[in-house]
Amino acid sequence: MKPLLLITNDDGYASKGLRTLCDIALEFGDVVVMAPEGNSSCLSHSLTPNRPLRVRTVSESERLKIYACDGTPADCTKMALENFCPTRPVLALAGINHGSNSSINVHYSGTMGAAIEASLNGLNSIGFSLLSHSADADFGGCIEPVRNIIADVLQNGLPVGIALNVNIPYIPASEIKGLKVCRAAQSNWHDSYQQRIDPVGRPYWWLTGKFVCDDLQPGSDEWALRNGYVSIVPTCTDFTHHSSIQQLSRRYE
Amino acid sequence: MKPLLLITNDDGYASKGLRTLCDIALEFGDVVVMAPEGNSSCLSHSLTPNRPLRVRTVSESERLKIYACDGTPADCTKMALENFCPTRPVLALAGINHGSNSSINVHYSGTMGAAIEASLNGLNSIGFSLLSHSADADFGGCIEPVRNIIADVLQNGLPVGIALNVNIPYIPASEIKGLKVCRAAQSNWHDSYQQRIDPVGRPYWWLTGKFVCDDLQPGSDEWALRNGYVSIVPTCTDFTHHSSIQQLSRRYE
Repeated sequence: MKPLLLITNDDGYASKGLRTLCDIALEFGDVVVMAPEGNSSCLSHSLTPNRPLRVRTVSESERLKIYACDGTPADCTKMALENFCPTRPVLALAGINHGSNSSINVHYSGTMGAAIEASLNGLNSIGFSLLSHSADADFGGCIEPVRNIIADVLQNGLPVGIALNVNIPYIPASEIKGLKVCRAAQSNWHDSYQQRIDPVGRPYWWLTGKFVCDDLQPGSDEWALRNGYVSIVPTCTDFTHHSSIQQLSRRYE
Repeated sequence: MKPLLLITNDDGYASKGLRTLCDIALEFGDVVVMAPEGNSSCLSHSLTPNRPLRVRTVSESERLKIYACDGTPADCTKMALENFCPTRPVLALAGINHGSNSSINVHYSGTMGAAIEASLNGLNSIGFSLLSHSADADFGGCIEPVRNIIADVLQNGLPVGIALNVNIPYIPASEIKGLKVCRAAQSNWHDSYQQRIDPVGRPYWWLTGKFVCDDLQPGSDEWALRNGYVSIVPTCTDFTHHSSIQQLSRRYE
């Protein structure tokens, strides 16, 4: 029996990025996909406690089983691990996301929420994202870096409690200069809501915004991506800021 | 003009925990509340990009303005900061949550998602939670620790990029032994989904689970809470695991 790889995403089970990731993962083992029914962007690490979840079998072959779930990406990770994986996966993958999850976007990303959930369950996990929102984006530039990173993690593992956040610039494969291990760039979204008026004169707000990043020095993921590199950010799954415990203890205890 | 404090939560604008927090915050300044219309638990740091948001004025007095929003807790923080705060808040507060956000639950918590969003926008921020899910819980034990922590943060600030995750045991005020600055305990939820059968014979799954924590040594938040202390966990808002960048660079570059 081949090793098992678990795949989820936040764009939905039918997305092109997920199919690309499946094709690569099948080079390394059998694959279980548990992915949202549809677009589940910006759901972060949210779960669904207040309604029941359904799971639908999309297709089952000997080496690739695809299930769709009407929960969040992190629900998909938990659901698959508890109920739909015949053996414990050797690796959890999320993506390939249609659109960037670099810098501050790691906070909002359902892709990374799913990857972090896997890491909290003791699995090595990687979220992959391509810097194009197009449903029909060309994933050609992803294939070699995604394959190489999966191969490395399967061979060498990851530090405990670290999930990888991998972003891939939207350029031809031949122009990708290589991989860079990075910090998430300091950045934010400005002017996040457009106020509009509905047909009966009442205001509503729509999330939008301008991405602002001044942290473009070498070492940041935004620098790497803008200079033709795939960015790899080791991402904490323990959110305690250990080095400030002592300082704060003096104030509060 | 008094300093402004921003308050949100994930239980909804009408919750008792939010009213308790407002009463304490008004001792320190004017208050703007932007809170979800209803229960928004487990929404983590999610945002709402795919539909418009509405904001409803619940009440406006000179010192206390309460707005309800049909978005997530993190939406509430962004919405308030961009559109409903007459001045920049000196402090952002979330809670008081009805139920624990200790240990692993920080990942799923809408309360902490809202607090982390405020921190990403440069504000000092604190999430407060009481270890009772009861809608009519007695918040008496919260008053003194919440007041003391707010007073301290207003005076001394917080380390850059740190939000405080404060949990309060559900015991009488007289039995609270004090404050402990802690790490989030290693823990997880097991057996997370109950499978049931619907009236027409199809399966569905409902999120539930058993909280399992073996990390009960002094220093963890679960130890503190089980021993009568209020736990204060300094929580990262930069998720990069900086200390593993160098090691991983050698593998990938």
